Amino acid sequence: MLAVTILGNNSAVPAFNRHPTSQVVTTDGTSFLVDCGEGTQTQMMQYKIRRSKISHIFISHLHGDHYFGLIGLLNSFGLLNRIPDLHLFAPAPLKEIIDLQLKVANNELPFNLQFHPITEERLLVDEEKYSIRCFRTNHQIECYGFSFAEKKKPRRLLPEKAKEYGIPSLFFEKLTMGEDYARKDGSIVKNEWVTEEGAKGKVYAFCADTKYYEPIIPHIKNADLIYHETTYLNNLAERAALRFHSTSGQAALIAQKAEVKKLLIGHFSSKYEKLDEFEKEAREVFANTELALEGVTYRV
Amino acid sequence: MLAVTILGNNSAVPAFNRHPTSQVVTTDGTSFLVDCGEGTQTQMMQYKIRRSKISHIFISHLHGDHYFGLIGLLNSFGLLNRIPDLHLFAPAPLKEIIDLQLKVANNELPFNLQFHPITEERLLVDEEKYSIRCFRTNHQIECYGFSFAEKKKPRRLLPEKAKEYGIPSLFFEKLTMGEDYARKDGSIVKNEWVTEEGAKGKVYAFCADTKYYEPIIPHIKNADLIYHETTYLNNLAERAALRFHSTSGQAALIAQKAEVKKLLIGHFSSKYEKLDEFEKEAREVFANTELALEGVTYRV
Repeated sequence: MLAVTILGNNSAVPAFNRHPTSQVVTTDGTSFLVDCGEGTQTQMMQYKIRRSKISHIFISHLHGDHYFGLIGLLNSFGLLNRIPDLHLFAPAPLKEIIDLQLKVANNELPFNLQFHPITEERLLVDEEKYSIRCFRTNHQIECYGFSFAEKKKPRRLLPEKAKEYGIPSLFFEKLTMGEDYARKDGSIVKNEWVTEEGAKGKVYAFCADTKYYEPIIPHIKNADLIYHETTYLNNLAERAALRFHSTSGQAALIAQKAEVKKLLIGHFSSKYEKLDEFEKEAREVFANTELALEGVTYRV
Repeated sequence: MLAVTILGNNSAVPAFNRHPTSQVVTTDGTSFLVDCGEGTQTQMMQYKIRRSKISHIFISHLHGDHYFGLIGLLNSFGLLNRIPDLHLFAPAPLKEIIDLQLKVANNELPFNLQFHPITEERLLVDEEKYSIRCFRTNHQIECYGFSFAEKKKPRRLLPEKAKEYGIPSLFFEKLTMGEDYARKDGSIVKNEWVTEEGAKGKVYAFCADTKYYEPIIPHIKNADLIYHETTYLNNLAERAALRFHSTSGQAALIAQKAEVKKLLIGHFSSKYEKLDEFEKEAREVFANTELALEGVTYRV
């Protein structure tokens, strides 16, 4: 099951007990941390996220509200004697910052921190059950979104049909993998006669910080769930563009054009104490929109 | 009035809703921030500390739990368009870290951040009404404590005496400054005949992270209030020494030997959920001990 838990849904300056950006994406027992604003480790404790389950961390860009909590989290992993490797995908200069902070503290991490610099759109992780890609957004500095795709499930066996064709049950698993069955007489039972398409893998895309930017659409097309920032309401579209951020209406338009199933919105400006207006404005364009609320897990 | 408000009283890994080290010292309308662990800016909001009143920040050493919240705070000062200069006193390498983090974010602070590297025991600030000094502690890496001393109050006028000697009231303010009065006939009225000693200025000392270390005593001698770390209870004295930290009994012994008036203890290890034992153990050696509790302001 693919799911995302929101740890921080605010933009740069913390306000109204909302925190800077961070999310945990889980699939199949593995957890991925996406961005890590200041206080992320405390939010993880608050919402009972098991730190030890985190195998990969993805940082979209090097504005502080997306990574200032990372060094504290790494430090705590160290003090808690983490053993497994940790994979960190982020814009290249982050490595220098981390190395410097460890050096001045005379601190050596007890686990292997594998740093993978992101410098272009590419496949970042390719495992048996899922793959993760990054794509460029349009922000003040180099910035990437991430898409998490479960792989297609195995084909579904039609047991009655398989028996009709006299296929032994020992061969059934191979059928779900798509193989044809060759009878002793040399004749072939085609796979599609005895199985049907497996369930499609789910896709979640985190669209990071960005102004309205249609080139991300191919990367999130038909996704089951996307998160898109909406720092401002529609009436501040000019300010949003100036600061390379989006409005609620723009986020919804991207969701609509990308024909996704559902939209989560977040990264709200500290100007706004109440958030209902964001949901209302976005739903006028794309009905299946929800506010990304801290502590809430959204199943994809 | 000199006072200190505790924002974080825990050691490195946040736990039990306790935060890493940070305190705000106030005197005469000015606020000084002492250490700035992750989440300090959120703690400031929680306890209604006015960020704009902070004129100086002092960082004791470059272990993350004492400064990881600083860059986020500086960032927020920038986003909130702070104008006044900010003075930052810290071990020298912190400048490189901050510069690098600002550079990768393409971020220029709108206010003047005056960085003052600390490399030795010295007078850091000398103003009309107070002075601030740093002193070395004994920790794994270079580490400094800070003492905040209000200057002695003006001498107190004895108005009856001054009248007896025929001193005009226009000269009274000069008497409180310690001047003698010269009569027209050339004879002198000695200042001490018509005034008495002003109130002694209060002193607060923050003793930073340290193992048991008597060389700090001269720097905190007779202070009105000191804060001393006690990461562990007495039965973990060996572990404390190994990690260059102190126990509750050791903190109390320093307070006793330095003949201070009152001791605050903090920097509790995340091992301990309850803190009463710390207070109990310290009070066995030094009765006037209190736990440094987050959100509480202690008048010096």
